[in-house]
Amino acid sequence: MFYHDRELQYKVRVDKPNPAFARMLQQAIGGIEGEIRVCLQYMFQAWGARGPVKYRDMLLETGTEEMAHIEMLATAVALNLEGAPTSMQDEFAKDKVVGAVLGGMDPRHILSSGMAAMAVDSNGVPFNGSWVVGSGNLAADMYANVMAESTGRVLATRLWEMTDDPGMKDMLSFLIARDTMHQNQWLAVLEELGGLHGVHPIPNSFPQSEEVKDFNYAFVSTYIGNQTTEGGRWTQGNSIDGKGEFHLKKAAPLGGEPKLAPPVPEGHAQKEQMTMADTVIGTVADKVKGAISGSGGSPE
Amino acid sequence: MFYHDRELQYKVRVDKPNPAFARMLQQAIGGIEGEIRVCLQYMFQAWGARGPVKYRDMLLETGTEEMAHIEMLATAVALNLEGAPTSMQDEFAKDKVVGAVLGGMDPRHILSSGMAAMAVDSNGVPFNGSWVVGSGNLAADMYANVMAESTGRVLATRLWEMTDDPGMKDMLSFLIARDTMHQNQWLAVLEELGGLHGVHPIPNSFPQSEEVKDFNYAFVSTYIGNQTTEGGRWTQGNSIDGKGEFHLKKAAPLGGEPKLAPPVPEGHAQKEQMTMADTVIGTVADKVKGAISGSGGSPE
Amino acid sequence: MFYHDRELQYKVRVDKPNPAFARMLQQAIGGIEGEIRVCLQYMFQAWGARGPVKYRDMLLETGTEEMAHIEMLATAVALNLEGAPTSMQDEFAKDKVVGAVLGGMDPRHILSSGMAAMAVDSNGVPFNGSWVVGSGNLAADMYANVMAESTGRVLATRLWEMTDDPGMKDMLSFLIARDTMHQNQWLAVLEELGGLHGVHPIPNSFPQSEEVKDFNYAFVSTYIGNQTTEGGRWTQGNSIDGKGEFHLKKAAPLGGEPKLAPPVPEGHAQKEQMTMADTVIGTVADKVKGAISGSGGSPE
Amino acid sequence: MFYHDRELQYKVRVDKPNPAFARMLQQAIGGIEGEIRVCLQYMFQAWGARGPVKYRDMLLETGTEEMAHIEMLATAVALNLEGAPTSMQDEFAKDKVVGAVLGGMDPRHILSSGMAAMAVDSNGVPFNGSWVVGSGNLAADMYANVMAESTGRVLATRLWEMTDDPGMKDMLSFLIARDTMHQNQWLAVLEELGGLHGVHPIPNSFPQSEEVKDFNYAFVSTYIGNQTTEGGRWTQGNSIDGKGEFHLKKAAPLGGEPKLAPPVPEGHAQKEQMTMADTVIGTVADKVKGAISGSGGSPE
Amino acid sequence: MFYHDRELQYKVRVDKPNPAFARMLQQAIGGIEGEIRVCLQYMFQAWGARGPVKYRDMLLETGTEEMAHIEMLATAVALNLEGAPTSMQDEFAKDKVVGAVLGGMDPRHILSSGMAAMAVDSNGVPFNGSWVVGSGNLAADMYANVMAESTGRVLATRLWEMTDDPGMKDMLSFLIARDTMHQNQWLAVLEELGGLHGVHPIPNSFPQSEEVKDFNYAFVSTYIGNQTTEGGRWTQGNSIDGKGEFHLKKAAPLGGEPKLAPPVPEGHAQKEQMTMADTVIGTVADKVKGAISGSGGSPE
Amino acid sequence: MFYHDRELQYKVRVDKPNPAFARMLQQAIGGIEGEIRVCLQYMFQAWGARGPVKYRDMLLETGTEEMAHIEMLATAVALNLEGAPTSMQDEFAKDKVVGAVLGGMDPRHILSSGMAAMAVDSNGVPFNGSWVVGSGNLAADMYANVMAESTGRVLATRLWEMTDDPGMKDMLSFLIARDTMHQNQWLAVLEELGGLHGVHPIPNSFPQSEEVKDFNYAFVSTYIGNQTTEGGRWTQGNSIDGKGEFHLKKAAPLGGEPKLAPPVPEGHAQKEQMTMADTVIGTVADKVKGAISGSGGSPE
Repeated sequence: MFYHDRELQYKVRVDKPNPAFARMLQQAIGGIEGEIRVCLQYMFQAWGARGPVKYRDMLLETGTEEMAHIEMLATAVALNLEGAPTSMQDEFAKDKVVGAVLGGMDPRHILSSGMAAMAVDSNGVPFNGSWVVGSGNLAADMYANVMAESTGRVLATRLWEMTDDPGMKDMLSFLIARDTMHQNQWLAVLEELGGLHGVHPIPNSFPQSEEVKDFNYAFVSTYIGNQTTEGGRWTQGNSIDGKGEFHLKKAAPLGGEPKLAPPVPEGHAQKEQMTMADTVIGTVADKVKGAISGSGGSPE
Repeated sequence: MFYHDRELQYKVRVDKPNPAFARMLQQAIGGIEGEIRVCLQYMFQAWGARGPVKYRDMLLETGTEEMAHIEMLATAVALNLEGAPTSMQDEFAKDKVVGAVLGGMDPRHILSSGMAAMAVDSNGVPFNGSWVVGSGNLAADMYANVMAESTGRVLATRLWEMTDDPGMKDMLSFLIARDTMHQNQWLAVLEELGGLHGVHPIPNSFPQSEEVKDFNYAFVSTYIGNQTTEGGRWTQGNSIDGKGEFHLKKAAPLGGEPKLAPPVPEGHAQKEQMTMADTVIGTVADKVKGAISGSGGSPE
Repeated sequence: MFYHDRELQYKVRVDKPNPAFARMLQQAIGGIEGEIRVCLQYMFQAWGARGPVKYRDMLLETGTEEMAHIEMLATAVALNLEGAPTSMQDEFAKDKVVGAVLGGMDPRHILSSGMAAMAVDSNGVPFNGSWVVGSGNLAADMYANVMAESTGRVLATRLWEMTDDPGMKDMLSFLIARDTMHQNQWLAVLEELGGLHGVHPIPNSFPQSEEVKDFNYAFVSTYIGNQTTEGGRWTQGNSIDGKGEFHLKKAAPLGGEPKLAPPVPEGHAQKEQMTMADTVIGTVADKVKGAISGSGGSPE
Repeated sequence: MFYHDRELQYKVRVDKPNPAFARMLQQAIGGIEGEIRVCLQYMFQAWGARGPVKYRDMLLETGTEEMAHIEMLATAVALNLEGAPTSMQDEFAKDKVVGAVLGGMDPRHILSSGMAAMAVDSNGVPFNGSWVVGSGNLAADMYANVMAESTGRVLATRLWEMTDDPGMKDMLSFLIARDTMHQNQWLAVLEELGGLHGVHPIPNSFPQSEEVKDFNYAFVSTYIGNQTTEGGRWTQGNSIDGKGEFHLKKAAPLGGEPKLAPPVPEGHAQKEQMTMADTVIGTVADKVKGAISGSGGSPE
Repeated sequence: MFYHDRELQYKVRVDKPNPAFARMLQQAIGGIEGEIRVCLQYMFQAWGARGPVKYRDMLLETGTEEMAHIEMLATAVALNLEGAPTSMQDEFAKDKVVGAVLGGMDPRHILSSGMAAMAVDSNGVPFNGSWVVGSGNLAADMYANVMAESTGRVLATRLWEMTDDPGMKDMLSFLIARDTMHQNQWLAVLEELGGLHGVHPIPNSFPQSEEVKDFNYAFVSTYIGNQTTEGGRWTQGNSIDGKGEFHLKKAAPLGGEPKLAPPVPEGHAQKEQMTMADTVIGTVADKVKGAISGSGGSPE
Repeated sequence: MFYHDRELQYKVRVDKPNPAFARMLQQAIGGIEGEIRVCLQYMFQAWGARGPVKYRDMLLETGTEEMAHIEMLATAVALNLEGAPTSMQDEFAKDKVVGAVLGGMDPRHILSSGMAAMAVDSNGVPFNGSWVVGSGNLAADMYANVMAESTGRVLATRLWEMTDDPGMKDMLSFLIARDTMHQNQWLAVLEELGGLHGVHPIPNSFPQSEEVKDFNYAFVSTYIGNQTTEGGRWTQGNSIDGKGEFHLKKAAPLGGEPKLAPPVPEGHAQKEQMTMADTVIGTVADKVKGAISGSGGSPE
């Protein structure tokens, strides 16, 4: 369970309130790269953790910390909204600055929240629970977490570039530092779980003997132009998981032409779909047979 | 630009149609772990690629392949829906099997699509464009891709376990193999970009000297219980990115109590918020001062 | 900021795991009546609180408690999923029970979360940040909170009726008790703020002299049938806020027929909309004039 | 403005309540093919109508009627839920029928609405305002309306097939009849606006001389397989709008390889994207030049 | 399956990058009128096509082409973002232009994508899979496609008006031309399927004898004002489908007053709903009887 | 069923069209505080009403009135868009005003609706059906309605402050007056149902003897800082519902540490989760036992 005190994890100071920057900060609160997502993601991973308990414990630690980050950012939004315009009256005609500010603000900061943060992104699109990833596979979850902290840190550095308010820059420097740690933290779990050779392919509990051979380490090229395809680490050498050899394979259809039954009467397609289907299907069946024999046979 | 033929990349065969399994397959089409997401994700990353062109080229290759995977799965859904019940009539009272099947189906496979796949997940929740991640940072994107292929492969192996239809198992074995390759492929890019020491912290173009010191390699523990915190790779040793030393730090507030201005009149808070605010704010200000001095001062 | 320990606020015990009940519990986690909503709602209200600090403090207390409730419910979901079927194989044909269970489960509990809770409702629809209400008006927010705890307690009692698992009934009895308190708690704030006469109409800081007279305490009846309209407390007597007298008023149009300009050329309506508009508009203008004089004049 | 009486537009009778059919009916209420959508769509088209007033008037008529259809369907949902199970207790273990029914129901009909209709589809996915199409172009809107009434009538006939309840079949027979009329009604507007030759291409107010020649009546084929492409009405003859001649054109790239600038420093891509970009761009530039000259030049 | 080359279908050139226009272009990518929608719509219609195979083949052709249109627009977005401001620093106070530009941009083009296109509309609202219509009825689908290409072409002409960048105007002229063809193409299928008399009412496979008589060709007027209702093509003459005669009918209730059972105890309504219901229901029942007899009887 | 005339409920006049204000008004149409929500909410509550019929009748009255409010606001949006810019051409470079206006507008008012209202909020986020609350519990619904009218009136007063257009101020004064009435109206129902002592805790049909004792009137404090917790009405005195005594209780865990089973093989967690789980679980079990005995036992 959870506890709180009334203080912030780190200083949140705004020297020159900027309502347009308040809108930008919303991305770090309710956006897909934001703190609500990581807070709930680590929490749900913890609450559903099956396997070694120490990972559950660690996820709870950091999930709880992220709640404090939402708090800091929400405070920063409110402080950036101090003194924001609430009117389009006379001034709107006279002073284009007000217009520009209003254009750059989230109008719902005035209309809906009364100058406070909301659970939305920088375009006012609400936080969406589908972003909370907890797959039940620890390694997949760790990659989801590294990814969240990577796009999160990219976002934070862009916000840092965007402002010259010393208080905001300081707060963001703290959050950037925490993202550095959190990237490392989830990578540390991946190292404990066996590193690249140990964890991949994720899930490592599925027998690779069941995979369709020749396709699990082949780079399939769908390119049909005339230029040469520049190779890379992914077209030659040992695979990164140490379990195969990379090679390049030109895309080619092995599956033949798909053939669906005509519509059922109760589904009320057009009559023409049912009548014409009969005729055509014979033709198709023939075509399909040709197509399959023409396309070079089955994959095994 | 893009081209097509009329054949499938790999065989899609359904021996015993199962409309409830059709619903399950929708997760691999329109779910967050599904193929529409990776198709569009690799495409958008390619179309917005800035930097070495070979990564753009590679992203296009695999994005194009994923479109063929949506096609395979959509075909599999349609084939699993052959012969599905379209009625709750008399049979519903008599035969509970029909009820069970209808209960397990996506009703929109009957009502909305006429026995065909849709751009939704296994609960009928529509595909959402917010899942398409392209951050402009190549390393962050590669982690987004490894994560997508990891949760995608976990999903595919669960679908493989769920069915004993030989055709479906074969198709899934192909898709599982491709996910193996794609995990390796994005990891290969990360290796090319410098590996763990080279790419982290992402973005590696932000000067770490700007990070708040002491927090970028500290595991912050918010735990206040009496048990000991079991350490892990993330509490000691060199950081995974090779740029710091892990250490544990007990969570403590450095930010003082936040203080917002009273509401502006035009925002029409309750009168009591404005009047009482004045009085209370004095008190708060004092409290805040105490809190800050009590909490141990500023972070540096 | 926030802290945690590793224990639950209250016992969560499942005697007979039931994967269909796990799905039902999701409504109390990620549904609009659920705990993520109230947790974030109280938090955002606290973080944006302007006015008396004691309300901010209290909101933080209860927001933090709600996080512990999400934890309890997420644990209950995971426990109800122990032993859930993961397969539609042979058994599906033979044993309709498995089908019924699978039909009653959230398939994503198998496919996406590996038998754990998710940030979705009982239909798998993701939690949506738009539900997090913090208006900046303390009284409006308190009603949002009473409403959330009322629909929340209704939901919890329905879940309580649905199960006969003693562990689940006990956990729900705890949550129902907390909802009782929380309803009372927010009502207590409304009492402190002045009760019905003091807080209404919300916001009480807008001068009622600006309201269009005769309409602020009139029950407008749009009914045009032949039966009599049964009165109620809302058609007679003093208004609940003590500032007016209820009376009934038959709906009648005071606004005349609306008239829009023809489309601008750059908006590319059909040509006919532009040509015909000219002709017709004259007619409309006349009609409008008639309509306005016919409808009984302006409201003052 | 709007008025009501307390009676339904047409009889709604349920002989054998079926809670699973209640769920099916939700598709016709809150689904994309449903009545909330057409109600709001016709209303918003009316309220924003620019041009001949008679179309505004007509849209209001039918929008108002659709509100009565939502009412009928909502009543039908409530009646189908009479006697629905509210429990998974003992019976769940003993009687699989209850399980099947619960599996086929929308659980939120029990948990959230207390046995009443909701503004959601048959999977519990909420109605979405993005479906309400009003483009400002009358002809485009009429097609949106024909489309809505076509998918709506398809849905209604599928629901009709699904039930053998005489009351429900009767109600659906009424709604199907109304959809027949509404398809005809919007087509009648299209006839008034000039028919196929008059309204197309929509918008007909854009000068076709500005279109890139040779592409406005060409069927572009992206097929690269070996079979012959079966022609159709769309590959030969006068175009349907009477303004061109259909012909077939093999897809070929005219646009060269796209070339984006390297990332800006403040966007914090990886360092390698910036460094390597410089080197590679030279190469690309050359390649692009080659590609453009190789691809056959500009379209005119 | 699918293939690609590295070149664009048509030239994409931006002479004067305009980050606000980049935002506008997003509507044509991820908006409901945009290219992701048509691409997936034609694909899903093809993959689920039952009936004559030539329609499947044709849908694949155009679905594949639309993918190339997304690519063109995504490239156009990236090019319009070259040189966009990334900062609100000093300049924000001094130079209102930057503010105006930032206000007009999608902030996520800076924060989330690093100056590249995203799968969202011009307000940053994500693409939604519910827009992908494939009903299983070929004629309904063709109308969905005509509608998509009509609103799509309206959008493209508005974008064309909005810009004076010659490169952008040229690209849009190409897309407008393609929309012209695609409108004609889907109409051509409708002609093949029998034209207005043949395809309507959609679905044409439902026996019209089952429709409630007198309502399938009646224009129902809900208007109760004093003006005369101006007729139109839809109030007289043969119906457009050739199967009936239009006529006008004043709206009147045929369904009586609905009557629901009192709440079940397990649903935990308020006690007063259960008690009072008993009393009132008697009254209601009487009223209902009166209402039905008063409202003129049943519809047949 | 429903009827209409062609006139507005109240005058809608715009003296100086302002396209940015048009965007603001969208919040009152399609936002969570807006009129589509209350219209559908009262309608769905009426259509699902079980219990005294007079509440159903009343809900229909006001639901019908709200439809007229959407109409007024939609008209106001269209009128504010008269003369709005449709172009970013030359002027954009020269005249920053156009840029400011375009930045402040909803671009979809140009691109998607052709200068008319849409079913979206002020950020273009679509109306969402999940906001339509009808719980089946009359008292809970009345609170949902008071809350909707409270946030709705707060919104309307903010819009009133924002504009100095006399026509718009007049229209808003009317809507504000109606919100005053509607707040009072739903409160009047709550008074009829028994007032605070009668209706709470909602639902009042659940036996409070089933609640976990000591927690239904306890204010639980999760605060662990050093300051004193300022009491309030909610920490002492009779509870507002008259059924208990408020008291303060320090948060303490009663539930022990949760313990989940190891992952099932078919869920394909990582191998390490399964192996390590076995070892660790022994330890955990011991810890849990200690934790439970240490945390002070069960709640009763």
